[in-house]
Amino acid sequence: MNSINPAAWRAFAAAIGKDQVMITEEDRNAYADHFAADESKHEPAGALAPASAEEVREIVRIANQYRVPLWPISRGKNFGYGGSAPVTRGAVVLDLSRMKKIEVDAATGTVLVEPGVGFFDLYDHLQSKGIPLWLSVPGNSWGSVAGNALDRGVGYTSYGDHASRICGLEVVLPDGDLVRTGMGAMDGSPNWTLYRNGFGPGWDTMFCQSNLGIVTKLGLWLMPEPEAVAGYDYEFDKPEDLGWAIDTLMPLRRDGLIQQSPSIGNWLRSAAVMTTREQWTKDDGPLDDKVVAAIRDRFKIGWWSVQVRFYGHLDVVEASMRVLDRAFDKKPIQSKKPALWKRGDPPEGSPVTGVPVSFPLANANWHGGRGGHVGYSPVLPPSGDLAMDQFKRTYALYQQYGMDYHASFAMGERSLTNVNQILYNKDDPAMMGRVDSMFRALVADASAHRYGEYRTHIDYMDLVADCYDFNDHALRRLNTRVKDALDPNGIIAPGKSGIWPKGKRP
Amino acid sequence: MNSINPAAWRAFAAAIGKDQVMITEEDRNAYADHFAADESKHEPAGALAPASAEEVREIVRIANQYRVPLWPISRGKNFGYGGSAPVTRGAVVLDLSRMKKIEVDAATGTVLVEPGVGFFDLYDHLQSKGIPLWLSVPGNSWGSVAGNALDRGVGYTSYGDHASRICGLEVVLPDGDLVRTGMGAMDGSPNWTLYRNGFGPGWDTMFCQSNLGIVTKLGLWLMPEPEAVAGYDYEFDKPEDLGWAIDTLMPLRRDGLIQQSPSIGNWLRSAAVMTTREQWTKDDGPLDDKVVAAIRDRFKIGWWSVQVRFYGHLDVVEASMRVLDRAFDKKPIQSKKPALWKRGDPPEGSPVTGVPVSFPLANANWHGGRGGHVGYSPVLPPSGDLAMDQFKRTYALYQQYGMDYHASFAMGERSLTNVNQILYNKDDPAMMGRVDSMFRALVADASAHRYGEYRTHIDYMDLVADCYDFNDHALRRLNTRVKDALDPNGIIAPGKSGIWPKGKRP
Repeated sequence: MNSINPAAWRAFAAAIGKDQVMITEEDRNAYADHFAADESKHEPAGALAPASAEEVREIVRIANQYRVPLWPISRGKNFGYGGSAPVTRGAVVLDLSRMKKIEVDAATGTVLVEPGVGFFDLYDHLQSKGIPLWLSVPGNSWGSVAGNALDRGVGYTSYGDHASRICGLEVVLPDGDLVRTGMGAMDGSPNWTLYRNGFGPGWDTMFCQSNLGIVTKLGLWLMPEPEAVAGYDYEFDKPEDLGWAIDTLMPLRRDGLIQQSPSIGNWLRSAAVMTTREQWTKDDGPLDDKVVAAIRDRFKIGWWSVQVRFYGHLDVVEASMRVLDRAFDKKPIQSKKPALWKRGDPPEGSPVTGVPVSFPLANANWHGGRGGHVGYSPVLPPSGDLAMDQFKRTYALYQQYGMDYHASFAMGERSLTNVNQILYNKDDPAMMGRVDSMFRALVADASAHRYGEYRTHIDYMDLVADCYDFNDHALRRLNTRVKDALDPNGIIAPGKSGIWPKGKRP
Repeated sequence: MNSINPAAWRAFAAAIGKDQVMITEEDRNAYADHFAADESKHEPAGALAPASAEEVREIVRIANQYRVPLWPISRGKNFGYGGSAPVTRGAVVLDLSRMKKIEVDAATGTVLVEPGVGFFDLYDHLQSKGIPLWLSVPGNSWGSVAGNALDRGVGYTSYGDHASRICGLEVVLPDGDLVRTGMGAMDGSPNWTLYRNGFGPGWDTMFCQSNLGIVTKLGLWLMPEPEAVAGYDYEFDKPEDLGWAIDTLMPLRRDGLIQQSPSIGNWLRSAAVMTTREQWTKDDGPLDDKVVAAIRDRFKIGWWSVQVRFYGHLDVVEASMRVLDRAFDKKPIQSKKPALWKRGDPPEGSPVTGVPVSFPLANANWHGGRGGHVGYSPVLPPSGDLAMDQFKRTYALYQQYGMDYHASFAMGERSLTNVNQILYNKDDPAMMGRVDSMFRALVADASAHRYGEYRTHIDYMDLVADCYDFNDHALRRLNTRVKDALDPNGIIAPGKSGIWPKGKRP
């Protein structure tokens, strides 16, 4: 499975060195999406690992010459959404993980990172230099800081809306041109990572979830180490508690008291990283209520749970806690565990204090066998009633397809992002046979309520993009028009986010 | 001065009604930039006032047919940056001020506005319906809510970075297509004004300071009425106080304690809206220190002054005040006036509590005669030392050109925006003869330090865009490439932000 012109491979090798051109079967397998139901659908032709933006530019020029589709990845850890694999079988993975430069400006709380910089890399860098800036990390922090922000990943602190903290990009355009956005567009500007807008149209968001360019540097704002972090881990006993819990927290989220995005997750979100299904039942069908009760009892977790945290000056954090206490006064919570960290205390070692972790990846082992999962993540209005409806409908579909419901609702400033995982065992053909139709049923259900996914697996990018249908898919026409203008040969990530180049449109 | 094909005028009249096609000399004069040094350079050929997005689409189709350059304005009150006048003489103003629909969602704190909605309109709408949402208004609130946000105007509350509160647009593209961005791209989505990103590339910022489309609806987040607002009006006695004042406030701005952008302005910013120059001196030259002292003494103002405000729950606001007090402990301030508003108190009637005002426009009368001004607004890093340097260099240039220094430094989360006004009397030819060379000297000075303007007058869009020169003006190539793809006939706002269509590039 390698339809790339051999002359192209030779040109790539001449440009970046033979060792950085990977075309063996083992290589191709290394870049497959091992979480996917069918890995072969997305097998790449090989991979290229440039060391610099200049090498990326060279690769792009060669790719244009030989019409080689490239699939840029940062570190390729986009588990649940495709990992490192391309939408189209036979594309060449452009692996940027060797590009690992970090430039921190401690005084302003900003960093300029290359795509290969992982959360652990940046954390270690800050720690080793004693720089008092905190990361916001996703649940599983194996990935790239830049890649995660560009894919609109989220974290747990008040800097958790990573895409909104991007400030300035360096991008190799599909024709090999190199552009810097915002204030970086001024050669030598000290404001590149400080002021977002620049002059004229803003382009940073155009390169999010995008195939319009290859980001080679990304400016990101980091949180100054706060004086204190405080909050609660709340547990809620009943499925119905979701509604009032959201209606209690959302006004405080909207009015700015809560600045992180609390994510209320069900018992399985908590349990799947601590235990496996077979320890509790041998039955294949829907989990018995007694099994759920036993697991919850063992780990002392609610049907739902949420971590709420305040970051800042101790006085302000304490005042915020009083407001939160009043809001939850007389509410029927199952339990709450207070959390308090003060500057000088040892690090908490948790994502809520900006420390990268990878244990949540363990949830792929829930069913045993070769584990995997796929994410279903619609956005809905910030209402407890609508969240309850969404929960009930999604839960019913999980039951119908014989899957274990795994969900969370992350409270954005004005919206809820309902992140669900479909956990599966790839060695169970009966189970795997249900995944695709279940996923399509979920997307159709969301779309019927006019809820769109915020992010999706490479298998479903067209399906999800199709839901964005205003004025007979005007957004697709705009996307396509810009795509054709910037990438006339269609070499960058064909099919990403449902955007296809000329001649390849489904 | 009307080189538009008469058939085009007839077609426009057929599309939107004869009364909405304005082509008399009086009409042309009404849309000129009366603050500009030379109004004739920007005289439009006439104006069109559509009532709906459908009419805008019709106009765009006709403009493409007859190659009529359109200059879209919302309400045209962009004083200091061009008002309602086009960059190119002879363009047709597309006046959207009749489009005044307002759709507020009180529960989520969002609004969808058409471009004709002014700050006073929206304020009155909220007041009349008793909706507890606050505006963030610019110093002079005559303008359009949407137009101001799209031009990256700023206000005084914690929602003062207006562009960052945009959530979803409806845009007529240059070919007449109608697109909705973000979640609006899903027909009938309830999330259009709630979730910013949508799926795939984000386009909202592409339509800021832009000539790539005509925004016909804009989603904006509004601040829920806080429980309390508190803070201080600080006055500082000496020019040198600028440095330490910025270095005292910026860490609190960066760490999130202060969520608005305090703007520290010099004595003339305060005085020019309360008095006129001739009441204090008859001399043309630089103002005597004694005159400055007398004005300051009369109005009890510092050489610099700044308003700092906290918005939110009373407990938190009070805690924030304690942190602020500690930060200013033993600092040599001239005076501080505490401010406290609590829910239920009568409105303060000030921009810091979201009430629109227009008195700051009075600064145009400082010199007497037909007043005007032009804004010079570079962005610099958030450092007291660099601000002092910038102040001294700019002050020296004002002295050299015999102008009265009028400046402020607005503290963004990671940057300073140094907004200066050059106030002038259009009836004073000697003074007017100095403005252009002075402005060019200021831009050159900023550029030498690699500071770019965040916004500029239509006279200077090319000059400012030229400073964004990384990789031989890669940003311009990107802007132009998208411009050509979306607007091949170059009909939308040629020259805006230094972006020119094919065949018209300088």
